Amino acid sequence: MEINGTAAASAAVGEPDFLAALANIVGEKWLVTTAADAEPFLVDWRGLFRGQAVAVVRPKTTAEVASVVRTCHQYRLPVVPQGGNTGLVGGAVPDADGAAVLIHLGRMNQIRAVDAANYTISVEAGCILQTVQEAAAQAGRLFPLSLGAEGSCQIGGNIATNAGGMRALRYGIMRDLVLGLEVVLADGTVWNGLKRLRKNNVGYDLKQLFIGSEGTLGVITAAVLKLFPAPKQRTTALIAVRDVPAAIALLSSLREASGDEVDACELMPRASVDLALKHISHARDPLDEACEDYLLVELASARESVSLQDLLEGVLGEAFEDGRVTNAVIAANETQASEIWLLREAIVEAQRLEAPHLKLDVSVPVSDLPLFLAAAKAGVEAIDPALRCIAFGHVGDGNVHFNVLPPEDGDIAADSNLSKRVVSAVYDTVMAFDGSISAEHGIGQLKREDLARYQPGVEAKLMGLIKQAMDPDRLMNPGKLLT
Amino acid sequence: MEINGTAAASAAVGEPDFLAALANIVGEKWLVTTAADAEPFLVDWRGLFRGQAVAVVRPKTTAEVASVVRTCHQYRLPVVPQGGNTGLVGGAVPDADGAAVLIHLGRMNQIRAVDAANYTISVEAGCILQTVQEAAAQAGRLFPLSLGAEGSCQIGGNIATNAGGMRALRYGIMRDLVLGLEVVLADGTVWNGLKRLRKNNVGYDLKQLFIGSEGTLGVITAAVLKLFPAPKQRTTALIAVRDVPAAIALLSSLREASGDEVDACELMPRASVDLALKHISHARDPLDEACEDYLLVELASARESVSLQDLLEGVLGEAFEDGRVTNAVIAANETQASEIWLLREAIVEAQRLEAPHLKLDVSVPVSDLPLFLAAAKAGVEAIDPALRCIAFGHVGDGNVHFNVLPPEDGDIAADSNLSKRVVSAVYDTVMAFDGSISAEHGIGQLKREDLARYQPGVEAKLMGLIKQAMDPDRLMNPGKLLT
Repeated sequence: MEINGTAAASAAVGEPDFLAALANIVGEKWLVTTAADAEPFLVDWRGLFRGQAVAVVRPKTTAEVASVVRTCHQYRLPVVPQGGNTGLVGGAVPDADGAAVLIHLGRMNQIRAVDAANYTISVEAGCILQTVQEAAAQAGRLFPLSLGAEGSCQIGGNIATNAGGMRALRYGIMRDLVLGLEVVLADGTVWNGLKRLRKNNVGYDLKQLFIGSEGTLGVITAAVLKLFPAPKQRTTALIAVRDVPAAIALLSSLREASGDEVDACELMPRASVDLALKHISHARDPLDEACEDYLLVELASARESVSLQDLLEGVLGEAFEDGRVTNAVIAANETQASEIWLLREAIVEAQRLEAPHLKLDVSVPVSDLPLFLAAAKAGVEAIDPALRCIAFGHVGDGNVHFNVLPPEDGDIAADSNLSKRVVSAVYDTVMAFDGSISAEHGIGQLKREDLARYQPGVEAKLMGLIKQAMDPDRLMNPGKLLT
Repeated sequence: MEINGTAAASAAVGEPDFLAALANIVGEKWLVTTAADAEPFLVDWRGLFRGQAVAVVRPKTTAEVASVVRTCHQYRLPVVPQGGNTGLVGGAVPDADGAAVLIHLGRMNQIRAVDAANYTISVEAGCILQTVQEAAAQAGRLFPLSLGAEGSCQIGGNIATNAGGMRALRYGIMRDLVLGLEVVLADGTVWNGLKRLRKNNVGYDLKQLFIGSEGTLGVITAAVLKLFPAPKQRTTALIAVRDVPAAIALLSSLREASGDEVDACELMPRASVDLALKHISHARDPLDEACEDYLLVELASARESVSLQDLLEGVLGEAFEDGRVTNAVIAANETQASEIWLLREAIVEAQRLEAPHLKLDVSVPVSDLPLFLAAAKAGVEAIDPALRCIAFGHVGDGNVHFNVLPPEDGDIAADSNLSKRVVSAVYDTVMAFDGSISAEHGIGQLKREDLARYQPGVEAKLMGLIKQAMDPDRLMNPGKLLT
């Protein structure tokens, strides 16, 4: 369903009033109506989704966003908010009918304030995640959200999609990091909920509605985020574990021994590391013997007084004795730590280079991971034993990226019937373990049909009631999330 | 507006159908319709609010709660959910008209499961908070919510009121501790959202609607809660600080030095300690010299390897050198730690014994506390310089219990005009600092008028839309929270 990424100039000719109104709000320079200029906004970065828009507007202030949304409401034009456009489910790209106004938040990129004593940062929606991290670090604080896309994703998008990432294990997901929000509602009203408070018990927590709502209830324009003491030491290890149960037991030991200072806990099965070594020239396995399951573990602490490396060595020593761990290397310096992380990052790219494949982002309770992984693999192999399951990622959160690659000479992506059967096999297993079919990537366009199939009716009904209450004209990001 | 706590037997005679239906659901034994038996459920524990109910029902299962609510919906009877009835704002007591069915959740008191590897506990709504803490501890885990009422409050009430308490600084408020919920909706439908997942990004986070909603959107029947590694050491200190800014700077130093292992940080001004020593015979000031502001600090760690006491001594040593701290005592054992906590707890009871007074539960950004406290005190003293302001409590969260006591021989509670002026002076100051007029106690009946006055119109409107969507017949806990 890929269509041309042309801004619908014909519609613009027929509807000059609202284009003039939009230009009047943001200035001619920040109203994009030509196909060439609009192109980068109309296709997602993986090239899976391509849409059309009657215009792309690039407001600079909350007041401008409010005026734009009010104008769209007046003309009954759909509104599609977009941040860094790094999403994986097509949530920030308009649909194909070309009626929508795309609001790009990138010019709202001011860090409004860092309050070190209050452990908060106040930011506009268009701030790049990495800029937020850096502003916090300059004040001796940590903003912990960390994603592969952090150099280009925007904080408003992180909030609208409730981003997860590498450090959710310790610091929580985006939802856990938001104290206050400013949102332009569907009719253009501004809700200023930019409280910088840890405790505020005055009724329904409205900000929660917008976090993870993928732009379907309003446009997030600014936020107050939690900060933490900046870490002063960090230690990274690559650990060969006996099996997945051993990995989970090791994680518990590390959480206990460190006082919950485990920043990351990433599982990499043998097959994923093999692909990384095959396809990525600078990927290296720092262990001297191949093993079945690798665990990347990182500890970090704001404490200076105690060596995390000593602590990690102590826990690994015990785990080695009882057989949970068979081998391990602790990075001696930042270069070695980077090499370990590079191996983790390489397995994503390596799979892409190996073959087109199915990428499923699922979660189950951590304690159920071993049984789930075995059951899901069995379900896929019952369809075709030559299919290759590679489940890796954030096991500390019970969140694995369950990818299914074709046999060496096959093409799973080209066979939509096979793809559907495989996806169903994995999702059915997820549901049997009371898990989630979208752990951190959201729903967007990609998983709407899946959600419709797997979501309990009462949840779909409640979501529909909220949508109806907040956006009765259904103008906010149509075609996304809701079924 | 105190009325008799009689169950409306007359209404019961006129409406035998629904009483028979309710008895049929829960059994005769668990349907309370006589005034004497209903009495404990109809008045809050402070005796400020007294209501009437057509019946008190005590269901044992989610299915029974659902049937009860369905029956109430069918007969258009208001529903008032009640847990431990320890709230401070009259949220769990029915209003005066006697039409309501009060659902007491106390018999739903099963710990369904503790999953140590997943760091979760699954509980029914009627579990006593302390029972939840103990079940977690038996599995080597911590459930961190900690309140004065923990021996009798129920977890369903903690969730419905989004309870805060002593350890919110480190572990967050109740909202931060809930992973899954089961709720009976206004029409009796059961929503099973009992996911045990850290990451689950499939649309609007419905559980957030019910957390802190004070029973106005549904009846919480069960929950999945986060656990943490159990602490293995703990150190408690009473610290004489130069002033409030010094206290806040000290807290930042402690958070940084400990790697965020500060469990509690409670401010006690001189006047509050004086009242404790005056009225509470077993209260003792362990410091050898009186000081203007006391800070109770507690650190706890799951780590065994490092002494928290050494760490605390190090930070206090530096703070002593630069004058932020003038004196301190670190508890040498649990008895001494208990004595320090007893002083903290005594200041609440001591104020009650001193005189009827106004209790305001407010919050501002931590960094604004010094200016706020000065401004609020000035505002009150401008009304009457003899009024005594005592602001104490959870300064680590920016949350102080701002109490106003009459002059030695006065009675502020008896003068409703004076009370109103004082409350307005404090709340106006709170709003000037973008704070909250209810940091952790909620709204209930007590603060509905205050909320109506101080809540921005757009928030009231959004709350009204959600209420209308979820409970169009307005049967869930009427007269609470919403204005």
